[in-house]
Amino acid sequence: MVHPHFLLHLAIILILSKYVAALSIKFKMPPVLGMIIMGILLGPSVLDIVKTDIVIQWLAKLGVILLLFTAGLDTDIAQMKSQGKASLMTAAGGVLVPFALGFFTSRFFGLDVFSATLIGTVLMATSVSVTVMTLIDLKKLHSSEGTTILGAAIIDDVIGILMLTFVFGLHGGENNILISMAKILGYFVASFIVGFFLFKPIIRFTRKLEVEAGVVAVALSLCFFFAWAAEKAGMAEITGAYIAGLFVGQTRSKRTVSEGVETLGQSFFVAIFFINIGLETQLRDISGNPGFIIFVILFAIIGKILGSGAGAKIGGFSLQQSTRIGIGMVPRGEVALIISAMALTRGIFTQTEYSTTVLIVILSAILTPPLLKWAFKEKDDV
Amino acid sequence: MVHPHFLLHLAIILILSKYVAALSIKFKMPPVLGMIIMGILLGPSVLDIVKTDIVIQWLAKLGVILLLFTAGLDTDIAQMKSQGKASLMTAAGGVLVPFALGFFTSRFFGLDVFSATLIGTVLMATSVSVTVMTLIDLKKLHSSEGTTILGAAIIDDVIGILMLTFVFGLHGGENNILISMAKILGYFVASFIVGFFLFKPIIRFTRKLEVEAGVVAVALSLCFFFAWAAEKAGMAEITGAYIAGLFVGQTRSKRTVSEGVETLGQSFFVAIFFINIGLETQLRDISGNPGFIIFVILFAIIGKILGSGAGAKIGGFSLQQSTRIGIGMVPRGEVALIISAMALTRGIFTQTEYSTTVLIVILSAILTPPLLKWAFKEKDDV
Repeated sequence: MVHPHFLLHLAIILILSKYVAALSIKFKMPPVLGMIIMGILLGPSVLDIVKTDIVIQWLAKLGVILLLFTAGLDTDIAQMKSQGKASLMTAAGGVLVPFALGFFTSRFFGLDVFSATLIGTVLMATSVSVTVMTLIDLKKLHSSEGTTILGAAIIDDVIGILMLTFVFGLHGGENNILISMAKILGYFVASFIVGFFLFKPIIRFTRKLEVEAGVVAVALSLCFFFAWAAEKAGMAEITGAYIAGLFVGQTRSKRTVSEGVETLGQSFFVAIFFINIGLETQLRDISGNPGFIIFVILFAIIGKILGSGAGAKIGGFSLQQSTRIGIGMVPRGEVALIISAMALTRGIFTQTEYSTTVLIVILSAILTPPLLKWAFKEKDDV
Repeated sequence: MVHPHFLLHLAIILILSKYVAALSIKFKMPPVLGMIIMGILLGPSVLDIVKTDIVIQWLAKLGVILLLFTAGLDTDIAQMKSQGKASLMTAAGGVLVPFALGFFTSRFFGLDVFSATLIGTVLMATSVSVTVMTLIDLKKLHSSEGTTILGAAIIDDVIGILMLTFVFGLHGGENNILISMAKILGYFVASFIVGFFLFKPIIRFTRKLEVEAGVVAVALSLCFFFAWAAEKAGMAEITGAYIAGLFVGQTRSKRTVSEGVETLGQSFFVAIFFINIGLETQLRDISGNPGFIIFVILFAIIGKILGSGAGAKIGGFSLQQSTRIGIGMVPRGEVALIISAMALTRGIFTQTEYSTTVLIVILSAILTPPLLKWAFKEKDDV
């Protein structure tokens, strides 16, 4: 349902997002952090003034899609290729260590093997939106660390889906790991063919038409098309948006599109996404075994820093750079929440495990921006 | 419900809107017309490929709100004041003549007095979005005709609400005409105070913060706030957005806001609005007495051209200018549909009257752009 005061809520979100961003900058805090905290304050956890609804949720989703599309546009593909191995290592380390920590902690607290496996899977899935926005604010998205994180995020998404299909498949679900792999492979092959061979002629054709804002609208269309296809292939929509951005970034209209999408995102959509993270959190509903909750959260954060960090180090980065990359991989998001919600409705998770996931998402979103800022403040030791 | 292929539908809407706009320009047709027809083709009336849903409907609503906000930004207030009398006459003529024609045609076809009054009321309410977009394309929004139409549209909206409250009040509803008038008066007084005294300091304060896209986001926030308040006062949201635009247009950030909102609107929201007009039309459901339907539609169009045209002439415009103004007042929209839907669910209207309204909305949207283009093509005779 759309809330009858939707337009008022939208007005409050837009004006406060900018004021809280300004305040954050003044206190040398990352603006993203301010927006997320503002969302928690406005939402059901504290003041309960602004209600999220289906339209705000979709505006938020379009916001994060645009954010990752921009990140794709700005990615240096040559740099990304040269860091392919490092990205792979980062993803692998960031998957294995959190999974192991989540699994054994859960077993220690008495969960059965299947539930423990799911907790491990929840801890695997990085969601880099918070990192991307923080790196944009720090002007570090183009650093080799930024590129590695983005590459690792795609690999992480793929591993996460395969793992999820595998786990639910074991549990007697209808999910077939081979079908899942075929879908993902199909998506990558199809998007490579479309992106590599069709994007340039489409953009060139559109540019010739000289319709107002034509190139930007058509580029957005390609972005939404890739996001839709990714979701239908079982992957995250933002992965599709990022890949579309990579290909549009290879066309001659890169700058026009980048500027147009940035205006669109910064003045409207992106702020809604970050405020909505807080609006969707209901901290008052948190309940369960505090020992379990605290340990899993701790390992969720430490696991990514250590695992992804170690992977990046093996991949050839310095210790300092590896720490930055590890921190950048900490945020969890939609995927973790979706898995937990599925597990909760099927009776596999109790309120304790679900609350843990909610807290991981919100705490990782709050902790990552200041940690990243700190890690990038130190002078490069390379 | 949000359609599972929402992102795909959005992608199709965005890409086709630009291609059909380009095609329209090539064939010297107004782009708006092309987009509306494309919407009908894609929608349930013909191909049934793209489904509208709650999110697309709201993106469309935000689109028309942004369109009228832009129109407000670009309005020359001095010019509008100097044409106050002409706007009043235009609105009055455009209300009286269609009402009388609708009422007597309905009586002639055997409708009772109450239903006939409602048909008259439906014919009263102009919805200028199609006119505004066409005038923007023709670069005639700043003409004295354009300003007069916008002024008349506000007055028209107010008269329409009062008439509606009055009619349903007579029919034993709980609507009180005095409360209605008090609400509208309250809205205008409050929005004048807020707009005149607070907009400038708010914008000035925001500009000093130097947050990215800060001024644009805050101006949008004020726009949505005014739109929300207008709707709560019983008026159309676009009237509120237009008034907010008028006041933001008086600040020093007029140009920044105007450019930002135009990018936002042209590359994303506005196209969705015009395509969605077609998507929401179900021409296959049209049924009823063809004689009645044809005559009412005819009088709906002729009534506005004659009534508003005569009003503009009395207000001091030349015959040619008055014709342009009369044509600009022809489009009907949401208000007519809302009244008809209310009357249908209450059993006052049959399918015939409801179908008539749907056809008026769609035919007036299709006919106005080419008529306006033709009327403005003739050399000014002043």
